[in-house]
Amino acid sequence: MSTKIGCAVIGHGGMGHFHSTRMAENPELDFIGAYDILPEHLADLPNNGKAYASLEELLADDRIQLVTVATPNDVHKEIVIKALESGKNVISEKPVTMTLADLDDMNAAADRAGRVFTVHQNRRWDPDYLAMKNIFDKNTLGKVFCIESRVHGSRGIPGDWRNQREHGGGMVLDWGVHVLDQMLMMTLPRKLVSVYAHLDYVTNENCDDGFHVEAIFDDGLVFRAEVGTSNFISLPRWYMLGENGSAVITDWKLNGEIVMVSDWENRDAVPIIAGVGLTKTMAPRTDDTIKHYPIEKVGGDWRDFYRNVCAAIRGEADIIVTHAQQRRLVKLLETVFASAERNEVVKLEL
Amino acid sequence: MSTKIGCAVIGHGGMGHFHSTRMAENPELDFIGAYDILPEHLADLPNNGKAYASLEELLADDRIQLVTVATPNDVHKEIVIKALESGKNVISEKPVTMTLADLDDMNAAADRAGRVFTVHQNRRWDPDYLAMKNIFDKNTLGKVFCIESRVHGSRGIPGDWRNQREHGGGMVLDWGVHVLDQMLMMTLPRKLVSVYAHLDYVTNENCDDGFHVEAIFDDGLVFRAEVGTSNFISLPRWYMLGENGSAVITDWKLNGEIVMVSDWENRDAVPIIAGVGLTKTMAPRTDDTIKHYPIEKVGGDWRDFYRNVCAAIRGEADIIVTHAQQRRLVKLLETVFASAERNEVVKLEL
Repeated sequence: MSTKIGCAVIGHGGMGHFHSTRMAENPELDFIGAYDILPEHLADLPNNGKAYASLEELLADDRIQLVTVATPNDVHKEIVIKALESGKNVISEKPVTMTLADLDDMNAAADRAGRVFTVHQNRRWDPDYLAMKNIFDKNTLGKVFCIESRVHGSRGIPGDWRNQREHGGGMVLDWGVHVLDQMLMMTLPRKLVSVYAHLDYVTNENCDDGFHVEAIFDDGLVFRAEVGTSNFISLPRWYMLGENGSAVITDWKLNGEIVMVSDWENRDAVPIIAGVGLTKTMAPRTDDTIKHYPIEKVGGDWRDFYRNVCAAIRGEADIIVTHAQQRRLVKLLETVFASAERNEVVKLEL
Repeated sequence: MSTKIGCAVIGHGGMGHFHSTRMAENPELDFIGAYDILPEHLADLPNNGKAYASLEELLADDRIQLVTVATPNDVHKEIVIKALESGKNVISEKPVTMTLADLDDMNAAADRAGRVFTVHQNRRWDPDYLAMKNIFDKNTLGKVFCIESRVHGSRGIPGDWRNQREHGGGMVLDWGVHVLDQMLMMTLPRKLVSVYAHLDYVTNENCDDGFHVEAIFDDGLVFRAEVGTSNFISLPRWYMLGENGSAVITDWKLNGEIVMVSDWENRDAVPIIAGVGLTKTMAPRTDDTIKHYPIEKVGGDWRDFYRNVCAAIRGEADIIVTHAQQRRLVKLLETVFASAERNEVVKLEL
């Protein structure tokens, strides 16, 4: 009756609702229904969707070609493999899984089934990320030696499964998956050569409610990625240092600026009093040797994620969020936990 | 003719001039003269001071009880020991020396001579440091789990001996000595259990023009100390996170604030759109659950440094900047270089 791709959601909590709503709005998709172990999560489904009584019932429905799995992290693997083996194409919420071994099992299931299997790394379409990536890609600042990415809140971690380690809770596996995926994508084709990580346990003893990662790439680039949930004052979302200038994006609204040196020769300064001492090194620049520029907003439409999945299902495009990228990210997550647990730098070639 | 303490300066460049000027203004001191290997540095000495023709001539002048050594770092040891062996009390500019072995030789010389030997750690009197230390000492924020101290400039490193490794140049041995001394003093009586350091070589291949240190103390406190000289946009000078609030001091003028949670129970939030995704965790707080407070300025007078040295020479006070503190600081400097060179976490008990 239509060439729309029939789709459903498994796990219809907050993120499941996010997906079902957007599926129902998507002209390429036909949202058919959802399943959740809590039936109350299935009231008022968009598009008059069906509330399935069991996972098996949903997977047996031949109208469904695509499922998005938005359950707690610890059951992604089992459900994704079942769905693939039922012939469905599958989107998993992030983090796709908590170990590389599990991910390899899932990717193998997708290969055996000949189906699309990808992960909802939606924040590759975040305007702040795309604006910073644009500055980096264009070499606006000259050779960049440091990038810092911070996401700061002050509400602790959510009180549901997200603060339970056995269900894959904690900030590394929540926001960390986003900021670390952005890091890996922004810095391509560099290889990651070392990782040092520290996890916070401020509001919670069971799983991390924040982290700080210092990653070094093979050309010497340092990338610091940080998430905090006990930060009542936020540091800027992005901070980038190049040989000829710096860039900052302070918030989600893309407030920020680029400051470039305009006169390298004019480096000399009158010493200033800073604290109780004199400093020439730290004397602020005067406006005759620097120039200020606004942050350029670049395009980017999150709907491209589902557009790409649909095109890949139809065989018209390669998938954007690939198995190889997810393997690299999950290996990085494992490395972050290992580094923090041992309080050691982990050297690798990733 | 007076009970003033006769004093002189060895090495009369920028910092030497700083000392001679302040000695001449100090009612407890009688500035007598200075020596420098460059005679042009000895023109127009304050107080009509004497320009000595040699180090030996200065050290032989019995009117001089106290000398301040403000030479390049690599000759501190030789000159300090000669001065102590001539019966002088000695202040060394920072860093006192580059290796612990050298410092131990200098401290031993002071013990043999029975003279005061201390280091000009003037930034223990910086108002920004004292204000932040006050917040920490008073436990204003509840248990503090993270302190960040940054000094950012954009002029690279000075072009004199300060960019030559063999003379003790580089930012670790310049501003690093200040911010790391402040770190050790602020966090007393905690012990330092690990250090991870990264050095920057942006404008200079020969010595570091910036660094980032992540130090962990025995109660889990994380202290990040950073100096940059290619930062055209500065991050805040101080940032402190406690369980119940955060504090920031943005600049030398003590702009900043404290933000405290006022209603812990009211943690729930309406999810916000951040980038292209929803987040409840990172939803900013509303003003009904937090309170803003100004940064309290606390007393602090740099002249107390010389007042203390004079009192210690007269046998009336213990010295503030002690041999043990300097040993700890120099050991930390060695650790920072070792960690950065090997790209490894160094574990210790310091």
